[in-house]
Amino acid sequence: MSMNKTMKTLQIIRAEHTELIDAPIPEPGPGEALVRVAEVATCPQWDLHIYYGKPMFAHEQAVPFPYSPGQPGHEMAGIVEKAGPDCTLKAGQKVAAWRDAGHHRPGCYAQYVVMKEEHLLPIPEELPFRKAVSLELGMCVAASVMKLKQSEGIRGQRCGVNGLGPAGLIAVQMLLAEGAREVIGLDPNPQRRELALKLGASFCCEPDSGEIASRGKPGALDIAIDCVGYPQAVRNIMDRTNKAVALFAVQRDDYTLRHQGLSVIGYPGHFREAAEYALDMVIAGKLDFEPLISRVLPLAEYSQGVQLLKKQEAIKICFIPGE
Amino acid sequence: MSMNKTMKTLQIIRAEHTELIDAPIPEPGPGEALVRVAEVATCPQWDLHIYYGKPMFAHEQAVPFPYSPGQPGHEMAGIVEKAGPDCTLKAGQKVAAWRDAGHHRPGCYAQYVVMKEEHLLPIPEELPFRKAVSLELGMCVAASVMKLKQSEGIRGQRCGVNGLGPAGLIAVQMLLAEGAREVIGLDPNPQRRELALKLGASFCCEPDSGEIASRGKPGALDIAIDCVGYPQAVRNIMDRTNKAVALFAVQRDDYTLRHQGLSVIGYPGHFREAAEYALDMVIAGKLDFEPLISRVLPLAEYSQGVQLLKKQEAIKICFIPGE
Repeated sequence: MSMNKTMKTLQIIRAEHTELIDAPIPEPGPGEALVRVAEVATCPQWDLHIYYGKPMFAHEQAVPFPYSPGQPGHEMAGIVEKAGPDCTLKAGQKVAAWRDAGHHRPGCYAQYVVMKEEHLLPIPEELPFRKAVSLELGMCVAASVMKLKQSEGIRGQRCGVNGLGPAGLIAVQMLLAEGAREVIGLDPNPQRRELALKLGASFCCEPDSGEIASRGKPGALDIAIDCVGYPQAVRNIMDRTNKAVALFAVQRDDYTLRHQGLSVIGYPGHFREAAEYALDMVIAGKLDFEPLISRVLPLAEYSQGVQLLKKQEAIKICFIPGE
Repeated sequence: MSMNKTMKTLQIIRAEHTELIDAPIPEPGPGEALVRVAEVATCPQWDLHIYYGKPMFAHEQAVPFPYSPGQPGHEMAGIVEKAGPDCTLKAGQKVAAWRDAGHHRPGCYAQYVVMKEEHLLPIPEELPFRKAVSLELGMCVAASVMKLKQSEGIRGQRCGVNGLGPAGLIAVQMLLAEGAREVIGLDPNPQRRELALKLGASFCCEPDSGEIASRGKPGALDIAIDCVGYPQAVRNIMDRTNKAVALFAVQRDDYTLRHQGLSVIGYPGHFREAAEYALDMVIAGKLDFEPLISRVLPLAEYSQGVQLLKKQEAIKICFIPGE
């Protein structure tokens, strides 16, 4: 390793225009590690919003272009290249990111990234990067799943997963790992329903197919996780669930609460224990991010990757910045 | 005891018209007990709806008059007069009702009532009836409190109680018993706020006084129980609560869910464990129904009692059918 070299990092210059730029390899500060990015996966919500110049949250006015180099890449696994002062990680250690430190900092669509140690979890030497690359999303979904487990229990329940994008496909696996009696996926996209079935879902259907009974009737869901976030879709899953719906998807509009007996589990925010929960499932072989990776591309082909996401022709793209 | 005698029972003949009628003292069937009603308390929701001929739930067309004799009385404590076949209760045992068997059966505004054994809990010999008379409402509120405890925890939290009617005043006591850091009551009625303070509430205010910060700001509530049930009131408490609002009050309209991070705890229904939880608190001296009884009246003065409730000049009325 020679630290005076530069690296390639992706930058979204303006909407629908990216460049692979040269940047100095950064130095880790106190409590930080320099990580050589082995693999970095898309997070469709972020990638589609930022690439097309649409603010992620309702209160934001505009996407600040040029966007921070390396962003919005944050689902990353790699190898510690260099530990900063007071960082207990060792060079050569395999790690995965479990938390996005914020888009004011350089992101992981780069050959190297500096991360706070507290935002990394060591992963076993024998675990392929592909199996851990989306740990950050695993942590996000785990936060909802853990809250649902605490509030209503999962074991033995008939569970719904509304929306079979990356988060939904992780939720399917987590609910099964928690002993759900059945996991039922709802998505208009037949390829996604098929993938959910491969991952162990008991049954999948289109959201409005009428194949899931209304709440209170035999065949309704006990609990569900919403990974869609549109009011109509949230209403649909609420109307079919008896006990509780966890709201995972980002809420952009008001929802209507019509059913007194139904609990709505708010999103509790990000926390390290949820990342450890997800990583434990990965290590136990009960959660696998690899089936969510539809394509592996060099970072130079980021724009093509985003277009595949937009057309729903890929669940996730994995980029290899070293190539 | 002479079982061929008749008893007095109240009947709501039509809206705003009641009669104290003579009826045969009923015989307990299998698994039932005949209870001599020592005390029976109003449940303002039911009493006001039925007495004024307004259906309790949105889907009901009209109140079926003449109403079942003894109804809607269901908060009752008394003494077992006679056990039916296969009933393990003993004559002379003090009991309180924890569940309303339904308004197709005769109710507790009567000198005697037949109850299913499974809907009664024995109470200690030394416990005055007044301390246990509203066990049924205690069970109802306990169901919400237990669910809130399971979902979010209560110990150490800053808790809100929206609406300081009978249910709210029970919720105040239960939250304190569960180790809430603070319990804050919201009600437009100053007498009710004062009573909540006497029962241990840390602070009380009018709902719109602005004395409770908006969610996310310092001074917002951690968790809350809504005992009001109007959309505007529910919105107000949701806007001031960070983690979870339990919906205790009967929901008659749609509510609007605006905050992604906020959980809404649906009402889980009635269950015996909640009654035992409430009774344990009564026996431990942490829950007292007696302060909620504003007036004690003979059953013949039922109409006057309901009018006191309507004017919010009483929290609850306790009737003594034996007088």
